[in-house]
Amino acid sequence: MSDIFSLSVEDLAAKIRDAQITSVEVCEQYIERIKKFDKDIKAWAHFDKKLLLEKATEADNHRRAGKPLGPLHGIPVAVKDIVGTIDMPTECGTPIRKGKSYSQNAEIVDLLHSAGAIVMGKTTTSELAFLGPSKTTNPHDYSRTPGGSSSGSAAAVASYMAPISIGSQTGGSIIRPASYCGVVGYKPSYGLISRNGVLRTSFNLDHMGVFGRKVEDVALLAKVLIKKDPYDPATIYYSADNMLSETKKGPLFEPKFIFYKTEHWQLIEKKSRDAFEYFIKSFKNIETFDTPSYFKDIHKYHQIIHETDLANNFSHYYKKYKKKLSKYMQTAIANGNKHSAKDYAEAIDFMKRSYESYQEVFEDYHGVLSPSSPGVAPKGLKSTGTAEFNKVWSYLGTPCISLPLLEGENKLPLGVQLIGDRYDDHRFLGVARWLEKECEE
Amino acid sequence: MSDIFSLSVEDLAAKIRDAQITSVEVCEQYIERIKKFDKDIKAWAHFDKKLLLEKATEADNHRRAGKPLGPLHGIPVAVKDIVGTIDMPTECGTPIRKGKSYSQNAEIVDLLHSAGAIVMGKTTTSELAFLGPSKTTNPHDYSRTPGGSSSGSAAAVASYMAPISIGSQTGGSIIRPASYCGVVGYKPSYGLISRNGVLRTSFNLDHMGVFGRKVEDVALLAKVLIKKDPYDPATIYYSADNMLSETKKGPLFEPKFIFYKTEHWQLIEKKSRDAFEYFIKSFKNIETFDTPSYFKDIHKYHQIIHETDLANNFSHYYKKYKKKLSKYMQTAIANGNKHSAKDYAEAIDFMKRSYESYQEVFEDYHGVLSPSSPGVAPKGLKSTGTAEFNKVWSYLGTPCISLPLLEGENKLPLGVQLIGDRYDDHRFLGVARWLEKECEE
Repeated sequence: MSDIFSLSVEDLAAKIRDAQITSVEVCEQYIERIKKFDKDIKAWAHFDKKLLLEKATEADNHRRAGKPLGPLHGIPVAVKDIVGTIDMPTECGTPIRKGKSYSQNAEIVDLLHSAGAIVMGKTTTSELAFLGPSKTTNPHDYSRTPGGSSSGSAAAVASYMAPISIGSQTGGSIIRPASYCGVVGYKPSYGLISRNGVLRTSFNLDHMGVFGRKVEDVALLAKVLIKKDPYDPATIYYSADNMLSETKKGPLFEPKFIFYKTEHWQLIEKKSRDAFEYFIKSFKNIETFDTPSYFKDIHKYHQIIHETDLANNFSHYYKKYKKKLSKYMQTAIANGNKHSAKDYAEAIDFMKRSYESYQEVFEDYHGVLSPSSPGVAPKGLKSTGTAEFNKVWSYLGTPCISLPLLEGENKLPLGVQLIGDRYDDHRFLGVARWLEKECEE
Repeated sequence: MSDIFSLSVEDLAAKIRDAQITSVEVCEQYIERIKKFDKDIKAWAHFDKKLLLEKATEADNHRRAGKPLGPLHGIPVAVKDIVGTIDMPTECGTPIRKGKSYSQNAEIVDLLHSAGAIVMGKTTTSELAFLGPSKTTNPHDYSRTPGGSSSGSAAAVASYMAPISIGSQTGGSIIRPASYCGVVGYKPSYGLISRNGVLRTSFNLDHMGVFGRKVEDVALLAKVLIKKDPYDPATIYYSADNMLSETKKGPLFEPKFIFYKTEHWQLIEKKSRDAFEYFIKSFKNIETFDTPSYFKDIHKYHQIIHETDLANNFSHYYKKYKKKLSKYMQTAIANGNKHSAKDYAEAIDFMKRSYESYQEVFEDYHGVLSPSSPGVAPKGLKSTGTAEFNKVWSYLGTPCISLPLLEGENKLPLGVQLIGDRYDDHRFLGVARWLEKECEE
């Protein structure tokens, strides 16, 4: 495999900046990979080779003209097909939106452009970022699911069809596919990345996030995307200026971890469970604890909020195109229409109360660990797997990251999930980098 | 009336600091007023003369010892009886809590103490800060309601039984009693003052606020109370350091106002309507506009959220003590138990969307004006009046203030409501002070 695939995104951007390689040359290498592998992996909802090379040429001309360059200048980035782009359709994984486009770029697309990055294409998503699977397969075994809903974004990075990509998570849509595909998937704290111009499934639970092959790569991409946006009222002022440098610096002391096997531990296949047990034992600074009892309530409340928000946001589709919706979506909306306001309000209220309890962990520990998924990617393409190991942290709005540190059955990748404290993403990524490095050595 | 009642709170605090008057002397004058008037006005839920004088003595000794003094050192402050205090009961206006106390001081009580202020007593509230009236009467006419739910806090300041006081608003519980009692009532932007340790009626709509006789007095008290509190997740980082100085400075240019008569204009009695019309005409810089059409939706959504949140927060009372609850509360909880999650989620979602529309006003105007209440305080004590002129801004979380600028029927006070943009409270108070000054001249 050629050199550019082993470089960090930061180093690749430096090479482009220093004219050691052009953006066109970089993109051509990715186009080669796509030609070779996408017929089997099917990670792209929209990919136009000609458009990509035009953008890369423009980036190279921009550099040659001596204009100021952003931190991702000339770097191609894959973007989940729920993110609005004016130069490509945004179909959101549903036949209802076949060929349809958004009239504006999403805020994060503008931020990518400001950083000099190139939107190289749109990656597949499960139906409306929920559970109905896309056409995409797992790069490690085409007969298995890549996970969802950010299926294409995880698969594209795993198969070196893109260096980095953007996804989103409402239940487990970043962490699960990252685990199944063997890449790094990072969901920042709630409200760090704007969702303005992106398909809304749940205001309360939707998070944007990123995929890469290394922690440093996701830190760099996140840094570019984190910005207060008046059009997404959930976004907060959070300075990401030092995000990459803090990630590289890592923690000052050896961090202490807590490992939650969670109540779903028995769902995990034996080989994967053994891999986790081995991982836990190989560190002196990991303590195993029972899951807090309120995690059960969180699962209940996550479902009430998620289903109700789906019912509200897709009521139009449900009324007009019900038959074009998957059974997953039809059931969720039907449930969503039945919940009571009292339960919903309680579910929202418990977000704040449970976070207060969760936060106490960080008085004694620097990170929480847990499986990213109940084992390796399951066989078949009719389901994207379950998000039982992810919903708690989507609900709590805490940062989480899946690190491709283990192997389960058939030597398939298996992710370790690290979770941090809300709005502590700098330090959190430093700890993630520390863990990644420990496992390299 | 003695000199201390005509001083601003800032000047009174300066006199105490400079030992021109002691805190004991100040408190004694307020005790005199209470002795004389409270048998008719009944503004106090808990008032202990001895305890107050002990605290004042302690404040004076503290000063004599040369210790550092806060901006409200030795100033007595009246506090609504839904705010937790360990040295007095907190009955929340319901027989269910008769004689009961909170085990901790509310965060804002600690902030008062840090500023050197003295909690002089607890003022009456409508039942659980909702609509069931307290025993309190209107200081201008004992046969009329003082408004609610912050009945005692408004009445105590209006009758010079307290210099400043703390109240709260979920619908119109500050602006309405301020209008009826002829004092300044200020509800800051949502999330500026912590509600930790205060009776929760609706996380989404509850605001703490303040009463005083002048805009500068409420600015000073608010400045002391505004602080990010990790135990109230709605609070934001907002620096109130310059709040009083910006209030005094006022706007750089003559501000432009929009006046919304609102769809409830016809509810207002003729004399009060004439007073508003006269007010509008006496300013060149006030333009009258029709209320935006989405205000109607806001009323609907406010009700859904309010009733659902009441049903959740008081479900225990409803189950165990239903008969001790007023008909107002019983009806609201029964309604709250019937709303659907879909409607509630929509109501929450519309908060963000309607605020975006509302905000556009501030591209061209410096303030929104509207009646504080549908006329003067109504006859009788069985109702506290309606909040139809207030709910929109409780829902939108924008700052609002009632200024006692007009007179309606029987020369009773009538408030003009000024509303600003969210998190723009400094400038907003400057504009309020400008308006107050214009009407003095």
